[in-house]
Amino acid sequence: MATGGMDEASNMKVVLKHYVSGSPQETDMHLTAGTIKLKVPKDSNSIILKNLYLSCDPYMIFKMMKLERQLTDPYVLGSPITGYGVAKVLDSAHPGFAKDDLVWGITGWEEYSLISDPKNFFKIQHTDVPLSYYAGILGMPGITAYIGFYELCAPKKGDYVFVSAACGAVGQLVGQFAKLHGCHVVGSAGSPEKVGILKNKFGFDEAFNYKDEPDFDATLKRHCPEGIDIYFDNVGGKMLDAVLLNLRPHARIAVCGMISQYNREQPDGVQNLSSMVSKEARMQGYLATNYYHLYPKYLEMILPLIKESKVVYVEDVADGLENAPKALVGIFSGRNIGKQVVAVNCL
Amino acid sequence: MATGGMDEASNMKVVLKHYVSGSPQETDMHLTAGTIKLKVPKDSNSIILKNLYLSCDPYMIFKMMKLERQLTDPYVLGSPITGYGVAKVLDSAHPGFAKDDLVWGITGWEEYSLISDPKNFFKIQHTDVPLSYYAGILGMPGITAYIGFYELCAPKKGDYVFVSAACGAVGQLVGQFAKLHGCHVVGSAGSPEKVGILKNKFGFDEAFNYKDEPDFDATLKRHCPEGIDIYFDNVGGKMLDAVLLNLRPHARIAVCGMISQYNREQPDGVQNLSSMVSKEARMQGYLATNYYHLYPKYLEMILPLIKESKVVYVEDVADGLENAPKALVGIFSGRNIGKQVVAVNCL
Repeated sequence: MATGGMDEASNMKVVLKHYVSGSPQETDMHLTAGTIKLKVPKDSNSIILKNLYLSCDPYMIFKMMKLERQLTDPYVLGSPITGYGVAKVLDSAHPGFAKDDLVWGITGWEEYSLISDPKNFFKIQHTDVPLSYYAGILGMPGITAYIGFYELCAPKKGDYVFVSAACGAVGQLVGQFAKLHGCHVVGSAGSPEKVGILKNKFGFDEAFNYKDEPDFDATLKRHCPEGIDIYFDNVGGKMLDAVLLNLRPHARIAVCGMISQYNREQPDGVQNLSSMVSKEARMQGYLATNYYHLYPKYLEMILPLIKESKVVYVEDVADGLENAPKALVGIFSGRNIGKQVVAVNCL
Repeated sequence: MATGGMDEASNMKVVLKHYVSGSPQETDMHLTAGTIKLKVPKDSNSIILKNLYLSCDPYMIFKMMKLERQLTDPYVLGSPITGYGVAKVLDSAHPGFAKDDLVWGITGWEEYSLISDPKNFFKIQHTDVPLSYYAGILGMPGITAYIGFYELCAPKKGDYVFVSAACGAVGQLVGQFAKLHGCHVVGSAGSPEKVGILKNKFGFDEAFNYKDEPDFDATLKRHCPEGIDIYFDNVGGKMLDAVLLNLRPHARIAVCGMISQYNREQPDGVQNLSSMVSKEARMQGYLATNYYHLYPKYLEMILPLIKESKVVYVEDVADGLENAPKALVGIFSGRNIGKQVVAVNCL
């Protein structure tokens, strides 16, 4: 909203107070008010964004920590945290972007952002779908599901597929892709409601609430009696260990994330890796960001599937930046149902 | 040696007394005397073998155990145990084999064996190399090294390669293949003598005695300061866990075996698998037996290398069937230096 000088707006930000260890809490962040000039600096390549949707993603926990082995630059204390988002360009000094363009990419957790080097932003070309989808099914989580399943798991019709965190931003897509591919699909999630969604909305053949299961090996033997050809691993730890005991020969494991381990000082020890030998299994870790060259190919596949309702997408939309910290910490305890986004501004 | 009727010979056998748990001991086996007719039964497909060399291989421990999850048929108590061996055909009713053929394949731990279905035996065509090599570099361990390194690890010149159990039947070959390929190669082994062989005989760039190293992560940081592109894993467990902390982006791990875990009731827990994601690493388990169609291609590569001494092979030859149990149990504590074979009969 306009304030002070003509081009200046008030700008609420979400700031990290201190680095965290273990599960992040709402109180690790706070909201601060600031102001921003809504004009790009002269002689720059900058763009000014009005942030519309912010994405809550598991990798963000690593930027909230200061680790001995830092995988990624930590957030700067006192500055707004960053993450994927969908935004409208208010002003641009960059030849690739114009006022009113819609874009997605890494933006700030604030109402408006000055992006000094916008080269990694994607311009949104298709607006006949919900814009928030560009934080999910049409953004990084979508590419993650697409690459992990189609490129890394080499799926075949009739394969037995198991997906953990199956109701999440990525898992719900993997399950639906696998069903469309003619696979038998089982998913795990953390509440009866999510289990119902897996079966009734996404068409999983079987689903279970892992919180009700004391012995994952026995659970998998019950739900996947034929064994597992493809495991799409979002969680790591004990579930991965149980999956290793239930692999079929030449099984493929795509390791997308290990969210069950991210807030642990001492990760679970995985004991059953010798199954990798006897089952001649393959485990492949990956980062979707290194596959963005395949984004156009993915869009070509996914847009018609969305429009024909052959793939659906469940989002959990928190309203307003003031609810963003709660939304973010919620994904580490599974409070969200579907892809967690935060609606910041209206278009 | 001939005894009784003209075609009958005495036949010493190594027999498993009882199933084992944990490390096998010499006393888990005993030698028994028997007799064998050295003529094949009429109307059969059999061959009679005079066993020359027997191979001691890590997988044999699984056949000495009776497990809840049996990976392979256990040995039959009271019958001779089986394993890879090199043998001469004494008599044959099978159209593919003739008297005096030399062969390698799975035979009995005894002086002479009746093989009722010899279809998985390979005929030895090249005898200008030591025959015992067909239990090692020219047999299953050789194919294991070849497939694991060339087919599964996608090696590139300049790659940083680490090999565990590097002085063993497979590891010594992987290290030499990697050097021939222009890689930087580091190996671990279990004695100063083995470390010397790695550096002086096989040309490893660096080698260390893992028994002297309390902190494998620190050890790897010292010996592989650039990180690891390819890990050829023969041991699993704590070494694998430390390797995961030292991977370079897009690292490849071939899991050939996990000998450090085979005699453990409770395998080590591997805690650092989340590196698979951040390093976009691939881990591939495999069984060489499923790649025997590539054996002719391997022979074409390896025979000239042996003859030109570009690849050397260290064997540890135990003399006589009476020393076979000791030789076999020795491989699980690393008593052998190089490929452990047992010389049973002279040609």
